[in-house]
Amino acid sequence: MSRVFNFAAGPGVLPVPVLEEAAANLVDYHGEGMSLIEMSHRGAIFSQIIRETKDLLRGLLNIPDTHDVLLLQGGGHTQFAMVPLNLLGAAAEAAYIVSGTWSKKAAAEAAKFCHVNVIGTPSRLAIPAREAVTVANDAAYLYYCMNETINGLEFNYIPDCPECVPLVSDVSSDFLSRPIDFKRHALVFAGAQKNFGPAGLTVVILRKDLLGLASETCPTMLNYQIHAEAGSMYNTPPTFAIWVANLVCKWLISEGGVEVMDRRARERSSLVYQTIDASGGFYVNNIPAQHRSRMNVVFTLAESALTDLFIKEADAQGLKNLRGHRSVGGLRASLFNAMPMAGAEKLSQFMKDFAERHG
Amino acid sequence: MSRVFNFAAGPGVLPVPVLEEAAANLVDYHGEGMSLIEMSHRGAIFSQIIRETKDLLRGLLNIPDTHDVLLLQGGGHTQFAMVPLNLLGAAAEAAYIVSGTWSKKAAAEAAKFCHVNVIGTPSRLAIPAREAVTVANDAAYLYYCMNETINGLEFNYIPDCPECVPLVSDVSSDFLSRPIDFKRHALVFAGAQKNFGPAGLTVVILRKDLLGLASETCPTMLNYQIHAEAGSMYNTPPTFAIWVANLVCKWLISEGGVEVMDRRARERSSLVYQTIDASGGFYVNNIPAQHRSRMNVVFTLAESALTDLFIKEADAQGLKNLRGHRSVGGLRASLFNAMPMAGAEKLSQFMKDFAERHG
Repeated sequence: MSRVFNFAAGPGVLPVPVLEEAAANLVDYHGEGMSLIEMSHRGAIFSQIIRETKDLLRGLLNIPDTHDVLLLQGGGHTQFAMVPLNLLGAAAEAAYIVSGTWSKKAAAEAAKFCHVNVIGTPSRLAIPAREAVTVANDAAYLYYCMNETINGLEFNYIPDCPECVPLVSDVSSDFLSRPIDFKRHALVFAGAQKNFGPAGLTVVILRKDLLGLASETCPTMLNYQIHAEAGSMYNTPPTFAIWVANLVCKWLISEGGVEVMDRRARERSSLVYQTIDASGGFYVNNIPAQHRSRMNVVFTLAESALTDLFIKEADAQGLKNLRGHRSVGGLRASLFNAMPMAGAEKLSQFMKDFAERHG
Repeated sequence: MSRVFNFAAGPGVLPVPVLEEAAANLVDYHGEGMSLIEMSHRGAIFSQIIRETKDLLRGLLNIPDTHDVLLLQGGGHTQFAMVPLNLLGAAAEAAYIVSGTWSKKAAAEAAKFCHVNVIGTPSRLAIPAREAVTVANDAAYLYYCMNETINGLEFNYIPDCPECVPLVSDVSSDFLSRPIDFKRHALVFAGAQKNFGPAGLTVVILRKDLLGLASETCPTMLNYQIHAEAGSMYNTPPTFAIWVANLVCKWLISEGGVEVMDRRARERSSLVYQTIDASGGFYVNNIPAQHRSRMNVVFTLAESALTDLFIKEADAQGLKNLRGHRSVGGLRASLFNAMPMAGAEKLSQFMKDFAERHG
């Protein structure tokens, strides 16, 4: 096959060895005479896969025993409801840093269930200054989105909050690309379809003392405690997605782990940002350097009429899915863990050539 | 490979041509240079797959324009909450026929949100007599489970209810194995992992006039209207599972459709029930013939101490996953659409041999 460079924001690029391993075992799983996707989730083989996947995540992210690992369905959008439904307890208010499209959506969902104290300026999406984040002692939790996929913004600090206020983060799009400090984070969640596996799987890592706060009228499937007590097997889990995520974890370990991913993410994204900054204004990204996302490089062409041509020519060269999110337009290069450095290099070279021809 | 006969109750057996097609395209989707599971769900290829899957379902089940087809996540358990959250409206009560483990669970979840009028005897699970089902005009809906996977019970009639009361059915385990009358059924749902595809996908088919009844505090992801308006793309759908379900639909059409599946299901299950009934009491199934499931043949050995030996010997002959659900014990042969007649024949022969050796 002639493999392209896929800059999609999710579902996005996965490691080729993972795809090959899944394909080779999709009809007959290691000589069992059936596919993994035909197997009972309670059988010995899948039970081992789901247990191992949680253990691999614990190792990759140094998740302490204070935290549980849940493998669920429903994506980030379902977490937008599960977080307040499970963490509010008797509190009437939660604090949300609104820095981009996803945290804005999360805050809107939480407003169905409690008063939301918004930190930041929803009309002008940006990572707030660290000192601008102040949280009252009686907030149920402080919520932020570590990396805003659509806006290309990534936190370069962990927001401060009183020790009694649990810190919650949507880490969907930079999951497994940087370490997470679980002394500070009470709950993080991630849709798998960026750095962890196929769509249809959501990982939640949460402090065990936060279990049991959901009310009687919380739908059972939205109650973290139910899933924790059942080892993420309360209902039939998405077995294929968990299997692929298991293979992704093993690939990450073979490549050197999360620190290596972090370094590579910086290298890939720096190259593209340098190309933008050196283009003499042909390409535009006005995000302060310290808040630029390592995962999603969002930019525009000063001459926006050239956007479609840029995408068309890039596409013809095997640089795929560079169009920005439909809500913001422009261009976006998502550079997830499985994107080789060669992809960033080829994109950078194409950008220079395109600017030379049209600048 | 040496393919076994897999009698698992779900995830369960899938058609080999479907698995082969998925495996052949899992690394490089039809020459696109990337996997289907790496593609943006909003790209041209997946958009076409999800649209086509809904159309194929419409064709296979004769779904009229009065009904919408939603492809969601979360399984039957999530539907147990979504049904009351979306259909109660201003009503205070819903009617549930409790005929087995799954309808009992659904009724318990609904009791979080309304008064549940239970029809049937939860202490002795069975399909009630048709005339025993009486429903008040002011019930929000009447709910039943068409096929009880764990208990081996299947409705042979459509429950009667006043025309103003929507009829709702969990059809998870006999989906696509028999026709569904959408003049009578206002809403049916099915977890995919029996007859439709891999785990992690749920199909909901509902009358469009039932959209819009959810309250303001219903979590967005649990609101049918949100998913209907977004064409099941409100959030990232489980792309792999939908792709495989698409291939399953095409396989069903190539085999002759739902009527052929219905006939085959009767043939397969009849053979196993005949073997039970002709065993002189060695094998036991006390379900009235008209309520026996065509999908899940549940039985016991009169001498229950032989159960483990039965499973061990069957396993050695490539007859896999015959143990009954952990909540009821005994044996269960799930005979989904993709189970060849040869599987039922081999099981029947093994049962006769085993009875002869140990009877």
